[in-house]
Amino acid sequence: MKLLRRTSAEFIGTFWLVFGGCGSAVLAATFPEVGIGFLGVSAAFGLTVLTMAYGIGHISGCHLNPAVTVGLFSGGRFPARDVLPYVVAQVVGAFCAAIVLYVIASGKTGADVLAGGLASNGFAEHSPGGYSMASGFLIETLLTFFFVLVILGSTDRRAPAGFAPIAIGLALTLIHLISIPVTNTSVNPARSTGPALVVGGWAIQQLWLFWLAPLLGGALGGLAYRILAEEELPKPAITGEVKPSV
Amino acid sequence: MKLLRRTSAEFIGTFWLVFGGCGSAVLAATFPEVGIGFLGVSAAFGLTVLTMAYGIGHISGCHLNPAVTVGLFSGGRFPARDVLPYVVAQVVGAFCAAIVLYVIASGKTGADVLAGGLASNGFAEHSPGGYSMASGFLIETLLTFFFVLVILGSTDRRAPAGFAPIAIGLALTLIHLISIPVTNTSVNPARSTGPALVVGGWAIQQLWLFWLAPLLGGALGGLAYRILAEEELPKPAITGEVKPSV
Amino acid sequence: MKLLRRTSAEFIGTFWLVFGGCGSAVLAATFPEVGIGFLGVSAAFGLTVLTMAYGIGHISGCHLNPAVTVGLFSGGRFPARDVLPYVVAQVVGAFCAAIVLYVIASGKTGADVLAGGLASNGFAEHSPGGYSMASGFLIETLLTFFFVLVILGSTDRRAPAGFAPIAIGLALTLIHLISIPVTNTSVNPARSTGPALVVGGWAIQQLWLFWLAPLLGGALGGLAYRILAEEELPKPAITGEVKPSV
Amino acid sequence: MKLLRRTSAEFIGTFWLVFGGCGSAVLAATFPEVGIGFLGVSAAFGLTVLTMAYGIGHISGCHLNPAVTVGLFSGGRFPARDVLPYVVAQVVGAFCAAIVLYVIASGKTGADVLAGGLASNGFAEHSPGGYSMASGFLIETLLTFFFVLVILGSTDRRAPAGFAPIAIGLALTLIHLISIPVTNTSVNPARSTGPALVVGGWAIQQLWLFWLAPLLGGALGGLAYRILAEEELPKPAITGEVKPSV
Repeated sequence: MKLLRRTSAEFIGTFWLVFGGCGSAVLAATFPEVGIGFLGVSAAFGLTVLTMAYGIGHISGCHLNPAVTVGLFSGGRFPARDVLPYVVAQVVGAFCAAIVLYVIASGKTGADVLAGGLASNGFAEHSPGGYSMASGFLIETLLTFFFVLVILGSTDRRAPAGFAPIAIGLALTLIHLISIPVTNTSVNPARSTGPALVVGGWAIQQLWLFWLAPLLGGALGGLAYRILAEEELPKPAITGEVKPSV
Repeated sequence: MKLLRRTSAEFIGTFWLVFGGCGSAVLAATFPEVGIGFLGVSAAFGLTVLTMAYGIGHISGCHLNPAVTVGLFSGGRFPARDVLPYVVAQVVGAFCAAIVLYVIASGKTGADVLAGGLASNGFAEHSPGGYSMASGFLIETLLTFFFVLVILGSTDRRAPAGFAPIAIGLALTLIHLISIPVTNTSVNPARSTGPALVVGGWAIQQLWLFWLAPLLGGALGGLAYRILAEEELPKPAITGEVKPSV
Repeated sequence: MKLLRRTSAEFIGTFWLVFGGCGSAVLAATFPEVGIGFLGVSAAFGLTVLTMAYGIGHISGCHLNPAVTVGLFSGGRFPARDVLPYVVAQVVGAFCAAIVLYVIASGKTGADVLAGGLASNGFAEHSPGGYSMASGFLIETLLTFFFVLVILGSTDRRAPAGFAPIAIGLALTLIHLISIPVTNTSVNPARSTGPALVVGGWAIQQLWLFWLAPLLGGALGGLAYRILAEEELPKPAITGEVKPSV
Repeated sequence: MKLLRRTSAEFIGTFWLVFGGCGSAVLAATFPEVGIGFLGVSAAFGLTVLTMAYGIGHISGCHLNPAVTVGLFSGGRFPARDVLPYVVAQVVGAFCAAIVLYVIASGKTGADVLAGGLASNGFAEHSPGGYSMASGFLIETLLTFFFVLVILGSTDRRAPAGFAPIAIGLALTLIHLISIPVTNTSVNPARSTGPALVVGGWAIQQLWLFWLAPLLGGALGGLAYRILAEEELPKPAITGEVKPSV
């Protein structure tokens, strides 16, 4: 399928991930008495991926995440030449979603949306539970490692066909159940960048960690699965079509 | 399958959606200490669709929603001549469900069910979180757009077969996780109309938004998927049988 | 498969349903601050059915519920001569589960398990939310009707194969999300009878409703699906083997 | 597949189970107002298994649990000679996960992670709800019995293919929904051993129960399914390759 169509799908899907995940956090998590809490936000992030993987997986592979794109490359499933276009589409989709979320959230009388952080990721004084930079770096790296490992495993030709979106979406839910208190959970540089560009200040100053740790974890996860599963390495296509990963 | 059978299935399915979704909100959301909150209501709405899609998808396609019916039409998957019968069946099913829910909820000593709004949708002073009409219109349009996109994508012949009800049901759960605080979440004109006809007053005055925004979003979602997926357009059957969408 | 093997599976499965569903309610629902609430209990009941349907569906069909057995009979999918043995196995399994749950729950210092009701079903002064007998009868009938309809639909040969346990289990979760406040949710006479026999008194006096309403709803649901889906009626086998329904 | 590759997969998978399950409990369960509670911890444990079963099931069978390995052996599905290597890999993976979790959790100012127990299992004065040793032993045995029964049933060749990870993962969620108040839920000696070795003291003194009861329950569950399902017993391979159970 043509690259424009595939990057359009990545744009739409990453918009959905950020609008749905961060939207549930900003609009619904702390609603008095009946708010959805971290459990609901975890469910929301996972369901953005589950639903889009069934919706557009056959178009773009539904990465929605630079760390996933890099992890699939390092796992031998994605061609180098498409990494940058995918990452750009993901970041632009995330940024657009953050803007629209900001507009909608501002429609509440007395709301100070930017002060609330718009679900940006952070560490140390900007960690929801006050966890250090080292804890944040370690957990983001580790969780992205496992995320990419589950992605590569569940889309392996030896795994049951059709179930990967469930495994991958619910892996993201699980990751949030563990780590929202530590960093507000990224494992996805695009998801971190969208709100940070709208909020500015501290969110941008801390953004480096949410690129570095997920990309590192994702790349290691791709290598680890390749070794673990003794995958024959298909030569990544340089000029041809890409098989969707999901 | 004959139209009467299919519209009967839509009647039953939409009854289930409104009775289950609004019922969980009215009866269980705010139960002291152990109430299910917005998270439980979100789960309930999604599960009405997931369960019915497996239950009656092979009969009617299980739309249960005028915005979905219109979105499938605009996406080239549903014939124009069946749109109106489907929508009528959906609205009548929703209305009947709201009446039965009202009767059951009134069986509690001291309950003033109508004052509670019977889970009607609203904006501005009737938004659960006090969000403006503009925020409500924007989010309803946007979420219905994505809902229809997920429906068309997950029922695409290139997507894994059999999983669409999971993707579609959980998409509705996700949509509620995001937007209950803004409008009580509609994305479905029939679901809005049922309780509004029982409650009357403000709920009917604000009903226009919950027809206009979801229908607009649904129609745009259908078009967008058609372009994105480069679908060959099967001519919608004018006189023949309809292939269920789910 | 031989009847003894199938009724043994029904015994084990219904034990699991009552021990898991009522167990989560008795042990975990109201735990201070971190208790699972009605949402967790709803999830638990549904997951007992989902897990057992994959575990023993190929042995007995995994009814675990007299109303389901009767509904499948009325829907033309289960032979009359096996109804009673199934129902007996289910009730005995439920009773054993209630006893074991009572023993375990009594291992907490100061616990008065019987006063807590052991998750028995009730109406009027024994409805969790104070709902009347009429509300209880109506909602139990209605929800069992839909439960059996989803069961018959999702196991229809025209529905996608293998997904029925998900649809059926999550339908039971949905049913609990709606109706725990009204009757503590039965839709299953065996599930009601187990705890009632241990608790005695009011729970036994109110037990009639939780046989009558679910059996009525289940039988009507079976008929309704038969009409709706225009099923050819396979003659229920009188002497031969039964095809599992799930 | 070679044993080293398979035990490596068990190491990674059990790391994930303990890091994810215990991690959600330690980091997120009691977060003020928006914490995930026992419901979120239950979801997390189940999702570690669901995600890994799709991720590495085709490599090692994804046991992640000595009681499951023993149960599969007693059910005639796993060779005796591989039991010990699997169990060792699981325990080492659990221990490493507990160490990493300890390091991350300690990155919070003022945290006293060891005093919190690091999600260790316990009974009597170390039972979250104050349940006796007898209650703990009984419920751990019973729940592991059912867990192994669901595993064997859902991976039976007569059950629908590909769904077992969903059934098994959600069975573990269900088990936690019932029994966290009683023992903090083990049903898995490796999961108990990891945190206990880090915490020391009482956690190690009570560790015997969380080996004995789960192994007993698992072995009985394997036998029970074999009898119930009238499985032909394939001779466990002594020297050949093992078919993954999931």
